[in-house]
Amino acid sequence: MEDKYIGVLTSGGDASGMNAAIRAVTRSAICNGFKVKGIYRGYEGLINDEIREFTTQDVSNIIQRGGTILKTARSDEFMTKEGRKKAFEVMQKEKIWALVVIGGNGSLSGARIFAEEYNVPCVGLPGTIDNDLYGTDFTIGYDTALNTIVECVDKIRDTATSHDRIFFVEVMGRDAGFLAQNSAIASGAEAAIIPEDQTDVDQLETFISRGFRKTKNSSIVIVSESPKGGGAMHYADRVRREYPQYNVRVTVLGHLQRGGSPSAADRILASRLGEAAIQALIQGQRNIMVGVRNSEIVYVPFVEAIRKDKPLDRSLIKLLNELSI
Amino acid sequence: MEDKYIGVLTSGGDASGMNAAIRAVTRSAICNGFKVKGIYRGYEGLINDEIREFTTQDVSNIIQRGGTILKTARSDEFMTKEGRKKAFEVMQKEKIWALVVIGGNGSLSGARIFAEEYNVPCVGLPGTIDNDLYGTDFTIGYDTALNTIVECVDKIRDTATSHDRIFFVEVMGRDAGFLAQNSAIASGAEAAIIPEDQTDVDQLETFISRGFRKTKNSSIVIVSESPKGGGAMHYADRVRREYPQYNVRVTVLGHLQRGGSPSAADRILASRLGEAAIQALIQGQRNIMVGVRNSEIVYVPFVEAIRKDKPLDRSLIKLLNELSI
Amino acid sequence: MEDKYIGVLTSGGDASGMNAAIRAVTRSAICNGFKVKGIYRGYEGLINDEIREFTTQDVSNIIQRGGTILKTARSDEFMTKEGRKKAFEVMQKEKIWALVVIGGNGSLSGARIFAEEYNVPCVGLPGTIDNDLYGTDFTIGYDTALNTIVECVDKIRDTATSHDRIFFVEVMGRDAGFLAQNSAIASGAEAAIIPEDQTDVDQLETFISRGFRKTKNSSIVIVSESPKGGGAMHYADRVRREYPQYNVRVTVLGHLQRGGSPSAADRILASRLGEAAIQALIQGQRNIMVGVRNSEIVYVPFVEAIRKDKPLDRSLIKLLNELSI
Amino acid sequence: MEDKYIGVLTSGGDASGMNAAIRAVTRSAICNGFKVKGIYRGYEGLINDEIREFTTQDVSNIIQRGGTILKTARSDEFMTKEGRKKAFEVMQKEKIWALVVIGGNGSLSGARIFAEEYNVPCVGLPGTIDNDLYGTDFTIGYDTALNTIVECVDKIRDTATSHDRIFFVEVMGRDAGFLAQNSAIASGAEAAIIPEDQTDVDQLETFISRGFRKTKNSSIVIVSESPKGGGAMHYADRVRREYPQYNVRVTVLGHLQRGGSPSAADRILASRLGEAAIQALIQGQRNIMVGVRNSEIVYVPFVEAIRKDKPLDRSLIKLLNELSI
Repeated sequence: MEDKYIGVLTSGGDASGMNAAIRAVTRSAICNGFKVKGIYRGYEGLINDEIREFTTQDVSNIIQRGGTILKTARSDEFMTKEGRKKAFEVMQKEKIWALVVIGGNGSLSGARIFAEEYNVPCVGLPGTIDNDLYGTDFTIGYDTALNTIVECVDKIRDTATSHDRIFFVEVMGRDAGFLAQNSAIASGAEAAIIPEDQTDVDQLETFISRGFRKTKNSSIVIVSESPKGGGAMHYADRVRREYPQYNVRVTVLGHLQRGGSPSAADRILASRLGEAAIQALIQGQRNIMVGVRNSEIVYVPFVEAIRKDKPLDRSLIKLLNELSI
Repeated sequence: MEDKYIGVLTSGGDASGMNAAIRAVTRSAICNGFKVKGIYRGYEGLINDEIREFTTQDVSNIIQRGGTILKTARSDEFMTKEGRKKAFEVMQKEKIWALVVIGGNGSLSGARIFAEEYNVPCVGLPGTIDNDLYGTDFTIGYDTALNTIVECVDKIRDTATSHDRIFFVEVMGRDAGFLAQNSAIASGAEAAIIPEDQTDVDQLETFISRGFRKTKNSSIVIVSESPKGGGAMHYADRVRREYPQYNVRVTVLGHLQRGGSPSAADRILASRLGEAAIQALIQGQRNIMVGVRNSEIVYVPFVEAIRKDKPLDRSLIKLLNELSI
Repeated sequence: MEDKYIGVLTSGGDASGMNAAIRAVTRSAICNGFKVKGIYRGYEGLINDEIREFTTQDVSNIIQRGGTILKTARSDEFMTKEGRKKAFEVMQKEKIWALVVIGGNGSLSGARIFAEEYNVPCVGLPGTIDNDLYGTDFTIGYDTALNTIVECVDKIRDTATSHDRIFFVEVMGRDAGFLAQNSAIASGAEAAIIPEDQTDVDQLETFISRGFRKTKNSSIVIVSESPKGGGAMHYADRVRREYPQYNVRVTVLGHLQRGGSPSAADRILASRLGEAAIQALIQGQRNIMVGVRNSEIVYVPFVEAIRKDKPLDRSLIKLLNELSI
Repeated sequence: MEDKYIGVLTSGGDASGMNAAIRAVTRSAICNGFKVKGIYRGYEGLINDEIREFTTQDVSNIIQRGGTILKTARSDEFMTKEGRKKAFEVMQKEKIWALVVIGGNGSLSGARIFAEEYNVPCVGLPGTIDNDLYGTDFTIGYDTALNTIVECVDKIRDTATSHDRIFFVEVMGRDAGFLAQNSAIASGAEAAIIPEDQTDVDQLETFISRGFRKTKNSSIVIVSESPKGGGAMHYADRVRREYPQYNVRVTVLGHLQRGGSPSAADRILASRLGEAAIQALIQGQRNIMVGVRNSEIVYVPFVEAIRKDKPLDRSLIKLLNELSI
């Protein structure tokens, strides 16, 4: 098996815990008799042969680091047949027989097509702060991002409370409200405006009509980023226009949600999933994402994982309403 | 229902997230038409009538605070029949018809006896950093303690790496190795010495014989506190005696593991469980602990919850061994 | 002296460490035989008599909290002669003979006029994250804000490095570049764009022409908020237009810079200044701000403190240039 | 000047900010036309030729890291004439004409002897968490350690307050009380027991007789490590014996005080001092430590810097007493 390399890459938006996953994949592979090659800059680096062998030492002292030592990128070329052909040729040249891809929706979609076209064993790990991959309870980076948001909102609340203001805080999450809804509960926010609710009701109106300033002098509303809704700025403008008596401020948390040292939960999740990816390859599985359901490792076909409709537990909406009285 | 009070107390060792639980119990109760009284200093304060009514404002701005605004204590008097009689009389006087008890093993054992003797509706919430309550995947405070430990070990690793040393870091957990085993994985430690393994093998010997200094210049071993094993100091002394070539240091993390602002996960857990406690009372449940299994709320009879044998996922032991190569 | 009250208030933008200052003023006053009254919501609360007596316990357990327990506000009414007249009458009614005002430029300007008009002993404490008060090396809240910014930029750098991007990060500071310049040095940023340099050179041009992408794949530029310069968004737009080959992102840190638990340095500074304010009153000083120069307590006349030209140590500009090669 | 190398090493106990200093020395040297070699494991590595050239990239992305990438050690061999002879020979072989030594008392003492014996330009940077070097207001690592202690005590206070307990918390500082006294003020502790006061009064007796439990239900006492005093355990034992009515706990913070990401102040200090070290060498200075006094760079002869009597500002003792009422 001396020339049987497993390649590992990170792709798409970075997420905290990706390094812990790279470490787990590398060490678990070596521990099981494989060799490992790190592929830099995602599919782009696979196409351009930015690849080098990894030993156990190469992944020392990285479990606590944010970002990804393999760097990441979005690759337009890999979206083309020619790009994937080049990628496959590089894999053959580098003697990489299997690929572990750590990334989100787009990255796993790419892996799926590639695996089908070239019959390459591909295993995906869910690496995204958005938690929007179907078939896994949690994605790598989600818990860290959630904690980062909550720490930021704790700080903003100091100011909100001191000044009797309404703050609209915009958080990431793409089309999913996991970060927004859960950070709202965890930070004691008064409301969350999330994409899952966007079609049917006017969430701002609901918030206002619940009388948010009756017994409170300050309020924090978490707003999910979203092309449809318009984001925090949009809602702040509406309040300024429709309820000029309120003192409104906006904070868009932005990219600081992606980085930082991963939380304990994300490091453990990444470690477990990384090991399970190697087990999956040993068992002959391919074209699957490794996830965790009810604390157990599960293998989810790519085609399932990238479904767009991962449900948000709607009891959390009721919970937030009850606890923000 | 105007005079139907629900009493809430925290008991035993404090855990981060207890305040979030107090807030959720209070607001959910009020939201469902009940009134709430806060009982100070655990059962001790119940016996001595250290009680006052709580409004929604009394629990404002506490979700992010460590410790417990209700304070906590261990009560010898409540262990006696006379003590519990006094407690019941105070409850009648204060018009408290039901009790929500937030605490660990000992606290729920007390609630169980009390509930049986006086037919009082008692609902328990698992509040302990040790995660050793049966029937719930997580206890309130565990995730925060785990993160605190991991942040401390990250700092210690800076020194360990800079000096080529072995560090034995002792963590809490009473008779359970959840904190030790999981913090070892999350911090990239080289080994964990836990009570669950204590009887059969010499864990230190295993660690040494795995050749911990072969490719590494520094090592961190997480040791669970434990009357049997002797703790970190004991193992450090053994290494000094048996392997004098190693440069050994000990850190006992101590009480800083209990406090601090709760993690997002602990705040959400505490919020969910607090609301579920009120639902349980509405449904007429009693003598149960509210827990979470596979992300779902569950109701666990006290007698089950306080069993001593909550199992540690043994695949985590294999995982640590593989990833610390 | 039983009816000789010292009044304490916080005014203007909140800053971390204000609570530590309130605690120090209160306890030092009581320790020296005075009584203390807390005035809520700044000058607004002084005018409206939102005042209550403070004991040593009222300021227990607040040294570690961000924001201000006295709340703060900007008061238009206090800007008028009538408003100040009302304020003085309330002071007489409440038997407050002296005022300690914790705040920034505007707040101390108000105190100055008030002290002159009514011959009231007023002592100011520099409470602002901007560090823009003349005559003191540091203001309360500056060190905390600096650390918050640096922690955020550390997280953003994880993403910048992983993606090979240029980030423009906008920080607070009003017309002063202290936060921007020093956070740039501390976070290892590639450049800072500050108001102090704004008139003479095109700082973006300088940054670009220094060849910021020669040996580096990612860059972080800290931009001071500033009505003149246009902020981070302005510079990002310029880069997108003038250098479209670069991948640019913007983060505006916003209000999270104000809050959070104060740093050790801010707590110590606030404690020292709070005590010194009481000493100043005992010595018969008035119409001065208490500051710290070269580690020593100094008393600065208000008229000096609110000068607009506190100099930035220009060697820091050279330092950043040298270290970001 | 192409073969004129400046060597940089870290020695003694590690301190947070050493990496920022290494980065500043390296980049400032290169910026001024020198070449740089990194010497691993302190004087030990100098003797054993563990040396390699450093470019600006070698010190990229390290400013935020605790510990030291150059590693550190205590060297017995360098204490001998033979050891220093070897060290000098290695310097000649490696074409290192000048040495920048980052470390504490012992490290600078070694540099002093070496510089005198071999007429080698040696410049020291104060790198120690203890802040005990004479002639500089602050040492690299002190501010970070202070913040780490204060964050830990904040957590311990959550538990102390919840349980009505006295905590003795032992902190580092060797023979100096800077960390203990200042962390006590910053954490709102009730007392500090420091070496500077040890000879004349019974500090515990003073603390008790001030009636520490009169109006408070919990207390935190910071105890400086110290061979003379006996440390936190000693004082806790005395309280248990002499005042058994109190509920006492001990936490020894230990090595976690050394590590962690450096504070903003430490990064800026390290950056300034690192640049100043190169300026000193250019100016022909040698046998001096670079320090900071009243915000200005100063050059302190080694023999001054290593004096044992850096004074503690005794007004801080009075301040703590006043504010802990």
